[in-house]
Amino acid sequence: MSYNTFGHMFRVTTWGESHGPAIGCVIDGCPPRIPLDVGDIQPWLDRRRPGQSKFTTQRQEADQVEILSGVFEGQTTGTPISLMIRNTDQRSRDYGDIATRYRPGHADVAYDTKYGIRDYRGGGRSSARETAMRVAAGAVARKVLGAGVHIRGAMVQVGPHGIDRARLDWAQVNTNPLFCPDPQALPVWEAYLADIRKKGSSIGAVIEVVAEGVPAGLGAPIYGKLDSDLAMALMSINAVKGVEIGEGFAAASLTGEENADPMRMENGQLRFASNHAGGVLGGISTGQPLVARFAVKPTSSILTPVPSVTREGENVDVMTKGRHDPCVGIRAVPVGEAMMACVLADHLLRHRGQAGS
Amino acid sequence: MSYNTFGHMFRVTTWGESHGPAIGCVIDGCPPRIPLDVGDIQPWLDRRRPGQSKFTTQRQEADQVEILSGVFEGQTTGTPISLMIRNTDQRSRDYGDIATRYRPGHADVAYDTKYGIRDYRGGGRSSARETAMRVAAGAVARKVLGAGVHIRGAMVQVGPHGIDRARLDWAQVNTNPLFCPDPQALPVWEAYLADIRKKGSSIGAVIEVVAEGVPAGLGAPIYGKLDSDLAMALMSINAVKGVEIGEGFAAASLTGEENADPMRMENGQLRFASNHAGGVLGGISTGQPLVARFAVKPTSSILTPVPSVTREGENVDVMTKGRHDPCVGIRAVPVGEAMMACVLADHLLRHRGQAGS
Amino acid sequence: MSYNTFGHMFRVTTWGESHGPAIGCVIDGCPPRIPLDVGDIQPWLDRRRPGQSKFTTQRQEADQVEILSGVFEGQTTGTPISLMIRNTDQRSRDYGDIATRYRPGHADVAYDTKYGIRDYRGGGRSSARETAMRVAAGAVARKVLGAGVHIRGAMVQVGPHGIDRARLDWAQVNTNPLFCPDPQALPVWEAYLADIRKKGSSIGAVIEVVAEGVPAGLGAPIYGKLDSDLAMALMSINAVKGVEIGEGFAAASLTGEENADPMRMENGQLRFASNHAGGVLGGISTGQPLVARFAVKPTSSILTPVPSVTREGENVDVMTKGRHDPCVGIRAVPVGEAMMACVLADHLLRHRGQAGS
Amino acid sequence: MSYNTFGHMFRVTTWGESHGPAIGCVIDGCPPRIPLDVGDIQPWLDRRRPGQSKFTTQRQEADQVEILSGVFEGQTTGTPISLMIRNTDQRSRDYGDIATRYRPGHADVAYDTKYGIRDYRGGGRSSARETAMRVAAGAVARKVLGAGVHIRGAMVQVGPHGIDRARLDWAQVNTNPLFCPDPQALPVWEAYLADIRKKGSSIGAVIEVVAEGVPAGLGAPIYGKLDSDLAMALMSINAVKGVEIGEGFAAASLTGEENADPMRMENGQLRFASNHAGGVLGGISTGQPLVARFAVKPTSSILTPVPSVTREGENVDVMTKGRHDPCVGIRAVPVGEAMMACVLADHLLRHRGQAGS
Repeated sequence: MSYNTFGHMFRVTTWGESHGPAIGCVIDGCPPRIPLDVGDIQPWLDRRRPGQSKFTTQRQEADQVEILSGVFEGQTTGTPISLMIRNTDQRSRDYGDIATRYRPGHADVAYDTKYGIRDYRGGGRSSARETAMRVAAGAVARKVLGAGVHIRGAMVQVGPHGIDRARLDWAQVNTNPLFCPDPQALPVWEAYLADIRKKGSSIGAVIEVVAEGVPAGLGAPIYGKLDSDLAMALMSINAVKGVEIGEGFAAASLTGEENADPMRMENGQLRFASNHAGGVLGGISTGQPLVARFAVKPTSSILTPVPSVTREGENVDVMTKGRHDPCVGIRAVPVGEAMMACVLADHLLRHRGQAGS
Repeated sequence: MSYNTFGHMFRVTTWGESHGPAIGCVIDGCPPRIPLDVGDIQPWLDRRRPGQSKFTTQRQEADQVEILSGVFEGQTTGTPISLMIRNTDQRSRDYGDIATRYRPGHADVAYDTKYGIRDYRGGGRSSARETAMRVAAGAVARKVLGAGVHIRGAMVQVGPHGIDRARLDWAQVNTNPLFCPDPQALPVWEAYLADIRKKGSSIGAVIEVVAEGVPAGLGAPIYGKLDSDLAMALMSINAVKGVEIGEGFAAASLTGEENADPMRMENGQLRFASNHAGGVLGGISTGQPLVARFAVKPTSSILTPVPSVTREGENVDVMTKGRHDPCVGIRAVPVGEAMMACVLADHLLRHRGQAGS
Repeated sequence: MSYNTFGHMFRVTTWGESHGPAIGCVIDGCPPRIPLDVGDIQPWLDRRRPGQSKFTTQRQEADQVEILSGVFEGQTTGTPISLMIRNTDQRSRDYGDIATRYRPGHADVAYDTKYGIRDYRGGGRSSARETAMRVAAGAVARKVLGAGVHIRGAMVQVGPHGIDRARLDWAQVNTNPLFCPDPQALPVWEAYLADIRKKGSSIGAVIEVVAEGVPAGLGAPIYGKLDSDLAMALMSINAVKGVEIGEGFAAASLTGEENADPMRMENGQLRFASNHAGGVLGGISTGQPLVARFAVKPTSSILTPVPSVTREGENVDVMTKGRHDPCVGIRAVPVGEAMMACVLADHLLRHRGQAGS
Repeated sequence: MSYNTFGHMFRVTTWGESHGPAIGCVIDGCPPRIPLDVGDIQPWLDRRRPGQSKFTTQRQEADQVEILSGVFEGQTTGTPISLMIRNTDQRSRDYGDIATRYRPGHADVAYDTKYGIRDYRGGGRSSARETAMRVAAGAVARKVLGAGVHIRGAMVQVGPHGIDRARLDWAQVNTNPLFCPDPQALPVWEAYLADIRKKGSSIGAVIEVVAEGVPAGLGAPIYGKLDSDLAMALMSINAVKGVEIGEGFAAASLTGEENADPMRMENGQLRFASNHAGGVLGGISTGQPLVARFAVKPTSSILTPVPSVTREGENVDVMTKGRHDPCVGIRAVPVGEAMMACVLADHLLRHRGQAGS
């Protein structure tokens, strides 16, 4: 089964292959009368676009989004919003190798086993190109959430090199191509990645996404908890192998006393003294910042030959040349933000439907 | 919004509060003509049942499951299977405190904010008692998967104490109340937990769940990937703060060479030389063991007073007495297995629906 | 596949077989803080209950509903509401015949073909007994809709005998066991049905359900239109063979002029001069009364032998003795009302989720 | 809420407005390795296309479909199939009137009330133009069903003029622009419609759709019955006011004896002597022809002025000039067939998923 829709009230369906004529998405359930035009979406796509530094694939795509429906005279109408990006950089090339040899670590063998057929050009449906539509949908989700909800992401670890949390400065993130929030970590990462790239190798990363201003009360327990829906959404991003909320895996080593988030009333408002929980209790937002992290594996495409097999069952060694990111985690930052925006928009509407506000 | 159903083709809906008359679930979409009786379900419930060691809550529940529909003459009929457990240990007690004072780290404040009302008795709907029905549903899912799919879980870390993977022995798991697979770690954990318990404290844990014999080809990319559905399912378990597949967060520190899983044909069968991927590529099972881990936070109920507030907005300090687990991770082991079983059963049917086998 | 849930935001899942230990439903997504107790549900069940006149089956069921979850101190909590009715009138009897011989017009042969197994006792899952849970869910839906929405149904045709619309008097409906709104039609129907019953025959009927006070704006076009969801809901009732909205099939013979509903402003309010549309335009409620009718086929169980086959493929003639309704349409009246209530409650929440009020 | 997806395993999402840049759909869940190209879809679109006779709107649209994803080297890949049709006949015109004056019988007032905004150009989202994508999706569904399932529709009543069933000849249907299966009714209809058209009036119709070769066992009771899903699907077509299966509303006047479908074994096969049921029992297909009819109201756009109101609440009289069908029922024939194909394809996959074949 393929299943290319996520969300319940704010539903996003994506379609398209890496080297087909276009990719796109349909956003259904968006509230009406929200101002929306291409200018609300394009900047987020530009931020994700490859080819902007030597650390991301040199594929050149204008990634120019078109709004095909659901917007009238600059406002959403409540009907499905269809977005499309034409694929422009479909180099005419020989796909002979990739057509028959399964690239290790890629979805090639899995798609072929499942469906008995696959569009092998550039990874087809399993290409990270699909994530452009997540970013486009996320831009619409941000408009639904409004200016009061502030979502931002950063890379917090590249290979063995983490940031120093004491130096975390969100203002730094958009000043460098690595979405690095720690000015002292940045040169370390750049040197490290340059070396990885030169060797034709690749490396993993950890991305953190934080949403501030999230209203308390979002989440649909027990099986639509805000954190479990977020886990689904982030784990569905290409190459993601782990997701955590708040303390995440570190919570396994904490005692109840260490992990407690004390509460106090301050000026008639509930305040938490800490945020080990990451903004969610019982699957419901508490009003604290919603904090998620996800781990991205190293790009599977490397210059070192790896034993593999062909479609016909012959042993081969596969070495992947071409336009690849040494660290796919970099471009995952805007994608992670977008997924969080979509999950929050969906739950905002779901909560309002049941509870009325 | 509340949302208490998971799965698409094998759909489980749970209901019930900790101290209401009963808890239950409805399993819809189960294939017909599968032999099923109470004896297929009860042993799994017994395994999760509290009160079996000093390390879990002393609440005594028989947890006797009834099959109310969907089974006829010992076989499933293809119609909804209704399972119910009567709550028997509802001690008559004064809930005055818990009714008005929000227990830190619990869902109390979140439910009240969201719904403006909550059944505060024993945590109501947010109680871990709900997980009994996951285990019951998981038992049915195992029958759907058949004997060829083998799912088992173990605790692999308690607080700071992890297992030594070289000593991992699945045969050990069911011989001790901590689901510990490492005979040398066991005494360390027991001593550590006894101390935690004596202090009225609590501690987190990491659980690992592995499914062997999973057919290649399961998963519904892009938004019903096997790993993202598993992430949702595991993150929805009470107190879970992180989920990872295969290398998980460790993949962030690996290079592409280190993380590669070489493939070779052996006797006409595809074999992988390693399983960094954890059994899934592009959201689709590869036929390798499916490996997931999840982190459980320490029980929030501790004897140390923690600053909190009341429903009416007064500052208070809350100390939780009563029947609590020092390490909720322990009882999460059978729950994690059950969730994996349900996800796999669902995807088995979904794949068969689309691809025909 | 079995699929026993309907609704999106107000979701009802029913379970249970005619002669199993119980039947029940789970209502998920109900708004919180709605006053609800058994007294809100039981009267509607009593109204549907068989054995109340000689024209319905003499099966005696107390149909006593229990609320097992989702209600605390007399109010809904926003968590799933589990309702259950124990089956009490399960006469111990020999089901040998019905077990092997397919009753013509019943679902026997269809269930066996589909699932390879069926609970043949009293029709099992396909029994009209399931509709009791629709009525129970409908009672909750009425509470969600509030006192401003008024839903009522009536039988408007029995066999060849229709009512005279000029005499339609809703006040009559609950004064007679046939839900007849026309005092002059009533004696005709009674005599007709007495004759049908004496002959061991059966007859079809048409039921009309009207909802007044429905807010304008409900409906989720294009594939969740209010009228198409209503058509689904009504057609899913046992023995229903047709559904129509407003003029329905009569619209086929009308010209555009005849079918037009002129609009005028009156005291600042939009008023329609007629209601050929039946309260819905483009799948969205207009604020006019929502009018639906559905046709119920004659009970298939009759005393005249009908050629049939056995499970083993032998030709037989089947004559159905036992406790059967000569006109199943009668008991379909409360069921039709309940389905309309559920559809409206669902759309009320869906609309509020998207549009905010 | 808007909700523009239907189906569970074979899911179709449509998007687009009458006078926007394009309309389209995404088909998700289609089985892999089904031969598919534009040539499989275009002929069905051509059959629905307006402007082919004087009895349908003179709007000229090439309705040229593009396949944007999900097909590779002439076969479906199991990933989402995106189809798009560019709107080419968007005459530049003054929409001033339609922008502010609600056309009686149209969805204008309903959309404005619901969403507070509407794309008024040509009906926007509520235009029958959307049905082109249903026909496109239906063409793909037919490929999924295979050659063994034969779906065909015909108009069986135009205004007061029904066909004579004794003369019903399916071979006639595609030889005339009215999809009339009765050669003697055809000239009567032509004369009648010519008169209706000359007067600037309009008229309703009844369409019948029949599927032969449907495997027994399809349908997902209780809330995904084959007939209730079909009712939903057909009722969702623009202007449809009633749906019936088999005898439909006529069943209300039948006795149990008259409505019985006797069964007999013939050469080891179950045979029914009649088909009052219309091919479905208990919501499950029996293997007999699946027979549905639906009533279409007269086109609301007529030359006679009808009282209406403006967006600003002024009383006006609205007379609709322009390119309109005197009988929208005509073009509903291919749409009805397409909806039946989609419902059957969905249930084929759903049944296979649960029951394995």
